[in-house]
Order: sequence, then C-alpha cells, then structure tokens
Amino acid sequence: MAKEITSREENYSQWYNDIVKKAGLADSSAVRGCMVIKPYGFAIWEKIKDQLDKMFKETGHVNAYFPIFIPKSLFEAEEKNAEGFAKECAIVTHYRLKADPEHKGKLMVDPDAKLEEELIVRPTSEAIIWNTYRDWIQSYRDLPILINQWANVVRWEMRTRPFLRTAEFLWQEGHTAHSTSQEAIAEARQMHDIYAEFAEKFMAMPVIKGFKTENERFAGADDTFTIEALMQDGKALQAGTSHFLGQNFAKAFDVTFSNDKNENEYVWATSWGVSTRLIGGLIMTHSDDEGLVLPPLLAPIQVVIVPIPKPDAELTQKAEEISKALKSLGISVKIDMDETKRPGFKFADYEMKGVPVRLGLGKRDLENNTIEVARRDTKEKTTIPLDNVVSHVEQLLVDIQENLLNRAKKFREDHFTKVDNFEEFKTVLETKGGFLSCHWDGTSETEEKIKEETKATIRCIPLDSEEENGVCVYSGKPSTRRVIFAKAY
Amino acid sequence: MAKEITSREENYSQWYNDIVKKAGLADSSAVRGCMVIKPYGFAIWEKIKDQLDKMFKETGHVNAYFPIFIPKSLFEAEEKNAEGFAKECAIVTHYRLKADPEHKGKLMVDPDAKLEEELIVRPTSEAIIWNTYRDWIQSYRDLPILINQWANVVRWEMRTRPFLRTAEFLWQEGHTAHSTSQEAIAEARQMHDIYAEFAEKFMAMPVIKGFKTENERFAGADDTFTIEALMQDGKALQAGTSHFLGQNFAKAFDVTFSNDKNENEYVWATSWGVSTRLIGGLIMTHSDDEGLVLPPLLAPIQVVIVPIPKPDAELTQKAEEISKALKSLGISVKIDMDETKRPGFKFADYEMKGVPVRLGLGKRDLENNTIEVARRDTKEKTTIPLDNVVSHVEQLLVDIQENLLNRAKKFREDHFTKVDNFEEFKTVLETKGGFLSCHWDGTSETEEKIKEETKATIRCIPLDSEEENGVCVYSGKPSTRRVIFAKAY
Repeated sequence: MAKEITSREENYSQWYNDIVKKAGLADSSAVRGCMVIKPYGFAIWEKIKDQLDKMFKETGHVNAYFPIFIPKSLFEAEEKNAEGFAKECAIVTHYRLKADPEHKGKLMVDPDAKLEEELIVRPTSEAIIWNTYRDWIQSYRDLPILINQWANVVRWEMRTRPFLRTAEFLWQEGHTAHSTSQEAIAEARQMHDIYAEFAEKFMAMPVIKGFKTENERFAGADDTFTIEALMQDGKALQAGTSHFLGQNFAKAFDVTFSNDKNENEYVWATSWGVSTRLIGGLIMTHSDDEGLVLPPLLAPIQVVIVPIPKPDAELTQKAEEISKALKSLGISVKIDMDETKRPGFKFADYEMKGVPVRLGLGKRDLENNTIEVARRDTKEKTTIPLDNVVSHVEQLLVDIQENLLNRAKKFREDHFTKVDNFEEFKTVLETKGGFLSCHWDGTSETEEKIKEETKATIRCIPLDSEEENGVCVYSGKPSTRRVIFAKAY
Repeated sequence: MAKEITSREENYSQWYNDIVKKAGLADSSAVRGCMVIKPYGFAIWEKIKDQLDKMFKETGHVNAYFPIFIPKSLFEAEEKNAEGFAKECAIVTHYRLKADPEHKGKLMVDPDAKLEEELIVRPTSEAIIWNTYRDWIQSYRDLPILINQWANVVRWEMRTRPFLRTAEFLWQEGHTAHSTSQEAIAEARQMHDIYAEFAEKFMAMPVIKGFKTENERFAGADDTFTIEALMQDGKALQAGTSHFLGQNFAKAFDVTFSNDKNENEYVWATSWGVSTRLIGGLIMTHSDDEGLVLPPLLAPIQVVIVPIPKPDAELTQKAEEISKALKSLGISVKIDMDETKRPGFKFADYEMKGVPVRLGLGKRDLENNTIEVARRDTKEKTTIPLDNVVSHVEQLLVDIQENLLNRAKKFREDHFTKVDNFEEFKTVLETKGGFLSCHWDGTSETEEKIKEETKATIRCIPLDSEEENGVCVYSGKPSTRRVIFAKAY
C-alpha cells in the first residue's frame, strides 16, 4: 500500500521523516535547510498559535512586530548573545540585482548596491527590540512592557530536520521589560508555567520543568527556564524556554528608567519562545506505525465521517445531520464526499493524518440505527446506537485527550531512572534511554566530559528537586541535588 | 498640549506621520525603511487579518508557509517577474559572522562562508511556490490548489512611509493553481470581490473595482484586478490586487498536469495580496485633526469607559456592570482605571487613538441615572438614561460604521470628475484632485506622456464602465470607454 511507512523499531528517524511526508505536514524546499509547511501541518500550527496567543493575552501581553533585519552594529552590542549566534547568521550584503551582461536573461548581484552596513536576518530579536525599547522607556510609569511577536527567524544550522531544526522556522518571542529583578523573574517563571500548562493540557505532552546549567543557557541570559519532554526513542526535546535576561540587554543598549525616587536604573528583561519545533514534539510523543496521532485539542479535523461504501443522498443527509450537531458543540468535522476512493483507502489515510475519531456510516448501520466509531489512539472500533453518537463522540474526544496524556506520562515514568554511578549511567543511557536523574558536582568541566563520553547533556535542574546529599556520578565529588541528563534533539 | 498634531490643511503628509506616531501605531527603526509596528497598530492588523482569513477560509482556501529565501536561479526563471522586482531585492550572500581580529568585541562577515548561490529575500513568492507546485501537481485530480500565506516580504524601496511603503511589510499572498483558464480567471475575480467587500464593509472605505493597463500590471501577470480607494488629499491608494497569471509561472517552472483526456497541459495560476498598507488607507480615509478615526468593525477598543473625575468603588462597579453587558454582545471595552491622569487628558488620548465610542461616567450622572456618550466620528456628545446604555451603544457602533462609509462615499463622489480635454484634466487634478474619468486612446505611449506631464497614472479601467464613444483627452484619438486617472500613493 502506497501509504505505508517505516516502522519505529526499524528506523525511528526514517519513521519520523515518513510521517512528516505522508501525513502532509511539510515538504523539503529548494532552499538548503528550509521546509515548506504544507496546509495540514500549518493547520496544526494555527491551532497551537491560537491557543498560546489566547494564554499570552489573558496574562496581559500584547503583540507587536519588529524588523526582520538587525544592523551588524546592533547585533554585536550584547557580546554573549552575539557570540552565541554569530556562527549561524544569514547576512544581507546587497540590495539590488541587475541584468547579467554575460548571460542573457540571467541576473547578478549589483556590486554598486552594497550596503554600508551588513544586515543580519534575525536569529532572535533581543537586539533590535532593546534598541527600540530605549526610546519607549523613560520612567517607571512606562513599565512593564509586555510584548510578544509571532515571526519567522533564521539560524543557519548545518544539520536540519523538518520542524525539529530548520534554517528558517516560525515562532513566538516574548520580550518584556521591568523595573525590578523580582518582577522580571516572576514574569519569566509565569511564562515557563504557561508553556508547561500548554504542553500538558493541549499537546498531552508531559514535561519536566527546570532551569538550565550555565553551559546550556540562552546566550545573554542570567537564567534559562526550560520545559523538557521525552520522545518515544528515549531522547529529550527542549520544547520551550523562558529567559531571565537580567540587565544585560539594558546595559548593552543603554536602556534606563527613572524609578519612583527619581534615580536612574537599568531595566530588567525577559524573553521567552516556542516554535514550530512543537510539531516535531507532537509527532514523536504520540504517533505510531500507522501514522500521526494527534491530541483532539490540536487536531485540525477532530472527527471524520466516511459514508460506506460511498456517499448517496440518504447517507449524506444523515452525515450532515451528525456533522451539524457536532459542530454546534465546537467540534471540527469533515464529511468525506470523495466518490473515487474506497473506504479502506480513506480509513488508512485518516489514520495517517491522525484524525482522532472516525465515524463509519454504512447502509446497513443506518437500517439498524447504529454507527461505527473508531478511535485513532487505541484503534478500537465500537458500534453504537446512532441516537447516541453526538454525546458519545463529545465524551470520546475528552477521553482520547486524557488517554494520550496518561500514556505519555506512563512512558516517561518508565523512562525516568535514578542512577548513582557512571557505569549504570552509561548502561541505562544505551539500553533504555530516557531521563537519568543523578548527582552532578556542579562544574562545567564534568558536564562537558560526560557529554563527550556519552552525548548526554544536562537537560535541566528540576524546579521540584529536593535537597539530597549524594556524590557526582562522574567525579565522585559531593552534590546536594539531582539533575536530569538525557540525549537530546 | 502634548498630543497636538499638524492639521491636514497645513501639511497632509506631516499630519499622517503625526497620527502614526501619536496614536501609537508605528515607530521608525534602526533599519533603513523598516518600521516597528507598535501594539496598537498591530492590534488593528490582527483585526484585519482575522476577518480576511475568515473570508479566505469560507471560500475554500487554506494557509501554508513557504521559505523566505528564493535561490537566485529560481528567482530569475520567470523573466518579467524577475525584471520587475530585481531593483528592490535584499540579497543574502553569506551565512556566518566571525570575530573581527582588528576590532575587539566586534564581528565581521566571514569571507569563508560565502553562499554558492545567492538567496533573495522574497519580494513576493511566486517563484518559490511554483517551483514547489511542480512536485505537488501531476493530474487534474490534484487541482485546484487554493493556498494562502501570511508572511513578511521585503522590497528595497528608496522612499518609504510608515504602512504605505516600507522596505519590509506584512501581507497575505494567495497562490492558486487551476486546470483551466476560466477557473483561474473566476478565482482572481472572486478574490477581487472579496477585497472590495472587505474594504467597504469592514474598513468603511469605498473602492473602485477595475483592471490595470499593461503598464501598471503586476510583473508576470496577464491581468491585474485592483481596488482603488481615494484618500482625503485627493490621491488614490491601490489597496489590493488580484492577478490572473495565465500559464507564465507554470511555463517558467515546468508545472504541468494530465487532464481528463490524459493530455499534458500547463497549469493556470492566480495570485492576490493585501498588506499592512491597508492601515495607511484606514488612516487617510477617516481620520481628522484630532487624530485617528477607526471604523468600529476594525477598532481594537470599540468602547472606552472613563470614570469622572476618577475611579472610585461606586463608579468602578457601575463601569464593570456596563462593560460586562457590552462584552456579552461581543463588543470590546476598556475601563480606564488610571488615577494619575485627568479626564480631559484621557478624552484627548482616546480621540487620538480613534476609539469609536467614549462613555463618561460621572458621580452626578450616576445620581441622575444618566451617562454621557461621545462618538468619535462626529464628536457629538449626548446624555442618555443609564438604563439604555447597552442597547444605545450597540446601535451607535452600527451607525458609526455606516456614517463613516457614507461620509467616505460622499467625499469620493465629490472628487470624481468626468473630464473631456487635457486642460480640464490638468486643472481638476491640480485644484481638486481625486479620480478623473476620461477617454484614453489605449496606448502606453499616451499613458506615459500624461504621467510625465501631470504625475497622474491610470488607476484602473473600471469593470462597470460602459461603452461610450469619445476621444482621448491627450491625443484626440478615438476611444470607446472611460478610464480612471489619479495621482497615487
């Protein structure tokens, strides 16, 4: 069958690429490392975006838009940030093409149109935004500024994978300005909480909440809060980060305010972002060898109705009745009216696309006043009285959402291992993978050595970890709390 | 008073810039020709976007996302399109910065990281999209493709103005593929109709619907449909265009399909777009010397409640009651709880921001069970019984929307002049401006001469113009229908 995909066991990475391709989520493009987000993939992103945007606005944030280009002199102003991103910057150097005199019909870069100062295509927008905030902030009355931006960014990555790591990606980036350190930290933690809530409640993807070690922090941050999810192959996915930026950008861009005692102070900052990478997380948290599995709250089509063997007047009328009743509950429904494809083909196609609930409406069912309900997550099929279909489906969508979260939680529990020595560390990492909870001596040196030897990194220091005396798995030096290691995307 | 702006009569262009600045719509940036869209301006764009997106989806379109970069070899494939945009292209030539050995802490473009092929920052996406469609289209069963994209684009314009003409702007671009010429033309005209409907119904901005002369067509189009609005200074604004692209892009990118007779044919195309320029149109259609005037259907805040002289427990409770009742009708309401500013200041500020309805809720009003209602469009104030406020405001928002459209229609009628000779043409253009309806001999030569002598261009050949014998205002040659000239933004 044309739609078949590589199994996870055979080759997880190929399975992932097959899902992206065959569920119609994304396609490669003529530009190195850039993908085309296809309509079905983009519809998932729209769901993600709408929900997050609502949560941001409910917490007092507003949207704005800043230029995609950053003049080099601004880009380099916050040195750590600049250093962190310098190696992956796309750079605009010219502003005009002209006819190529040696190749008829071809164009060439016009050497006379060289920019005086190069422009960096934003890999992140702190520099251009803080350069603007300087003009917007004079007094404590101008604070806080709570701005978010939905935008595209470019990071010239050498090894790319659809959604997980692409040269251009879509994201949101919040950039807030505050009069006190405490308020900025509270903001960074609030957004961290919102990301975790979104991941669990809407994506059905459990996450560990923690903060990053100095090594793994965002370039230019004083503290990075992260949500870390676990993929089915035992690797971690950093799914969202929220940064307390201290006064680093305020100092680099000279952004000060006069406080209520009329003294001048530097402004405190946060930034926070999630991206189209979340779609990669969705895929690798829930999907199976038949294709994509989507949590109902983010599924572009929640219910598909397939008339069997094909649409006719009676089946269509009934399907429309059901569809109307479901839609009135806010459920998105598609009736498949295509007469050129057989039900078996359609079933496989909607499984591939991860539609949570499929209703098979057959002639004989109609006579018996029944309907077949198939759920995508467990692939169970049941035949129920037609009269109950609306309330049944409504409840089923809730159950599927819950089941996906519970299943993912169970998987994570099964792949969360306390390890207390380095042999165990390596064995668990190689055999079972997942999150390793262990003591670490707190030095970058040890962190880097473990990374070199095992490819595992410290995903985070969990916020809920308790004080506990122990010794570092690698150096044997004393430690007072466990951290989380894993191999990561 | 700090908020005062230049009057329209004194200097229309400065008035426009003052509104943009003082209503908090946009700000200049460190990047030549690029603006920062501030939260209030962006909230208007979100309103525009949400409504258009709904109208696109209702007509069967879906959203997707294509890369921001176009390899030069693809960009130049459709020669007319490439030639049309070549002079305003931002070009990425390198993908890495490195530490500048001669300037500590500074970065420089790494000469070793030169791209083999330059990348154009999209000025429009036909090239990258049609290069992708080649892989998506084999048979007539794959057609039509009805895709829209919300994106940023870059056109390196030499003279820029906020919203009207900026180096980077936000827009939507629809790109559709069809199996017949008729279907593609019908699509282009459908989207043209949707733009006109949106302009009149939501923006309260009447438009003339027509098509462009060959000179004024989109580069690469066989036909360009346009909506042309009239600004208060008598200049026209091209507010949206929809293009029938024929098979030009299909031929350039070799996109063919096998029809139902199993013959290979080139695919037919359309593209259509509107941009943040619409916000410039909104400003120049409705606003006055006190600031922005917004049609209620696109106003981020439709009603503001100002407690007078300042918020106290009783006033706040009443304001919240009114707000809740209005919100339940889908009306957006802000209660101004700021205690540091006086009512007079607030009134001027909301006038500047164009909030359609202001409710002044005073202590004495409350005793008398009345409330003061001020409408932004006419600046009328009335005192009404408090018990009627919700239904009154609901109706008032409808009235304001209607009044703005009628006022704009009246203005356009007053500035639509039939002229029959070139003297009259020049006189009307200089004294009163607006749209000039006149005969033209159909040649590009005449069109260009008129432009050179008067700066007026043919805005469109109206779709509803009737056959009428006449002579060209410039050349005296015979003509069978009138066209619309104007100076334009």
